[in-house]
Amino acid sequence: MKHITYIEDMNKWKDDFRFFYNVKVRFSETDMYGHMNNTVPFTYFEEARIEFLKYIGFMEDWVKPEHETIPVVADLQCDFIKQVFFDEEIKVYVKVKKVGTSSIDLHYMALDSKQHVCFVGRGTIVQISKKTGKGVAWSEAMKARLDEEVTSYHLA
Amino acid sequence: MKHITYIEDMNKWKDDFRFFYNVKVRFSETDMYGHMNNTVPFTYFEEARIEFLKYIGFMEDWVKPEHETIPVVADLQCDFIKQVFFDEEIKVYVKVKKVGTSSIDLHYMALDSKQHVCFVGRGTIVQISKKTGKGVAWSEAMKARLDEEVTSYHLA
Amino acid sequence: MKHITYIEDMNKWKDDFRFFYNVKVRFSETDMYGHMNNTVPFTYFEEARIEFLKYIGFMEDWVKPEHETIPVVADLQCDFIKQVFFDEEIKVYVKVKKVGTSSIDLHYMALDSKQHVCFVGRGTIVQISKKTGKGVAWSEAMKARLDEEVTSYHLA
Amino acid sequence: MKHITYIEDMNKWKDDFRFFYNVKVRFSETDMYGHMNNTVPFTYFEEARIEFLKYIGFMEDWVKPEHETIPVVADLQCDFIKQVFFDEEIKVYVKVKKVGTSSIDLHYMALDSKQHVCFVGRGTIVQISKKTGKGVAWSEAMKARLDEEVTSYHLA
Repeated sequence: MKHITYIEDMNKWKDDFRFFYNVKVRFSETDMYGHMNNTVPFTYFEEARIEFLKYIGFMEDWVKPEHETIPVVADLQCDFIKQVFFDEEIKVYVKVKKVGTSSIDLHYMALDSKQHVCFVGRGTIVQISKKTGKGVAWSEAMKARLDEEVTSYHLA
Repeated sequence: MKHITYIEDMNKWKDDFRFFYNVKVRFSETDMYGHMNNTVPFTYFEEARIEFLKYIGFMEDWVKPEHETIPVVADLQCDFIKQVFFDEEIKVYVKVKKVGTSSIDLHYMALDSKQHVCFVGRGTIVQISKKTGKGVAWSEAMKARLDEEVTSYHLA
Repeated sequence: MKHITYIEDMNKWKDDFRFFYNVKVRFSETDMYGHMNNTVPFTYFEEARIEFLKYIGFMEDWVKPEHETIPVVADLQCDFIKQVFFDEEIKVYVKVKKVGTSSIDLHYMALDSKQHVCFVGRGTIVQISKKTGKGVAWSEAMKARLDEEVTSYHLA
Repeated sequence: MKHITYIEDMNKWKDDFRFFYNVKVRFSETDMYGHMNNTVPFTYFEEARIEFLKYIGFMEDWVKPEHETIPVVADLQCDFIKQVFFDEEIKVYVKVKKVGTSSIDLHYMALDSKQHVCFVGRGTIVQISKKTGKGVAWSEAMKARLDEEVTSYHLA
């Protein structure tokens, strides 16, 4: 498998995931080359990320119109390992790799029904103020919850 | 050409359009059948509609966060006349067919570079209150501007 | 509820559905007005339609590259009944309304988790030849299977 | 500006671009946070990349159904510098950074109407065989054309 800068040891990296979200490749997500279009994994990453953020209890506030902060994507990347086709059932895994002051680095892994890695990715999200657009530090409770995710994976 | 319920006389109907917006079929808008996916014209209709609403001076207020009303789509339909392929340049025409108290009925026509009709459509949009979700009648100025559009087409 | 041309009696029309497909509104499917964008139901209709076509055994051939025919959408429409928001779980129902020589008229109904109708729709699909682009009549087996769907709903 | 791993000197990196493609942020490309959704730049990258591939004469063959090879995306990444909103006019620049045996590394830069950098990106595409799915080396003519692009930028 090709070298991917954010993965040191693929087997360890794979074992480190717990949380996943199921998607199925839609017909409208294919393109005239007959496979899933390259823009689609980023939508799957977003869905998996949001489900993960709901799971750790962060999303509820972030969708309230009156809430002061929202998460934004600072960067995002995807490495395509094998072609994916219409109707394939994909598990999109998410894990917290690193917790910053107001940001987290998330890693993603997509497995097909035969447990083959189809594509992988990573990206940073930052909590910002809706008014100023500047980063807002995690509260202690949020920080603790995020650290727990990092730790639990590494101990597992 | 097949019968389309909202078109009485295709030639007259075609002649009645003035305003159009250019789009080009994106690679990500094709599907594995090799042509433009059937969900895509609705995106083109939205783009053409918004350009039209900008042209008649309605859109500026409708994108202000503090403005009281927004336009919503009440219904939408599309009849597919010929297959459309990657990279085709399409002109999407829009006209006002009827003006209601708080709504307008818009018609759409898409022509390819050879002036062939690719797909046509129609749909009603309604001005609603962000707070109540209920229809809000056009102001007299808005009504006058809309009537002008209907009339100008029919006299032309 | 507003008048919808393809629905005579809403209660009977609703009772006539059996098959449904679950979708959840993605974050990327919302727009700056805060709700599901109006282009999205057509993607849901496509997903529900394809699941239905798999269920009646038609889809398998239609995704084989060497197969002679494909289904294409001849027309499509949607009536929006109530606003739909991020993360809502929607059941998209599909039924066969009428069987033509090479076409079927499908109806769609989307219910939210409280069983409220969010949007409804209809559209015709046609089996065409990949080579000629012309309609290809249903085989007797396909016709029989389609008639069964129409009948079973009406007897139920 | 934040550190981006594939950009050594931002000013030199910016000056190195020549080719660009215009896009305008669609309403359906915004999300409920009021800005362009994070999945959208990858569609813009694809459009700009394809226009670039047409410009250097590579695309014509790659869309022929009977042609033996197609380009596929091996990896893709985007760094978001500033929020982008509905209706913004964006220039998406593309350049060839490196030419491999069967691949090219492309860089992307998006400027708003005030010439501010909104987002940047990079990604590798590979020419593969439709049959085997394996990489197919550039012909000498293709290699020469690609090298020209790399060189012309660096001399300019």
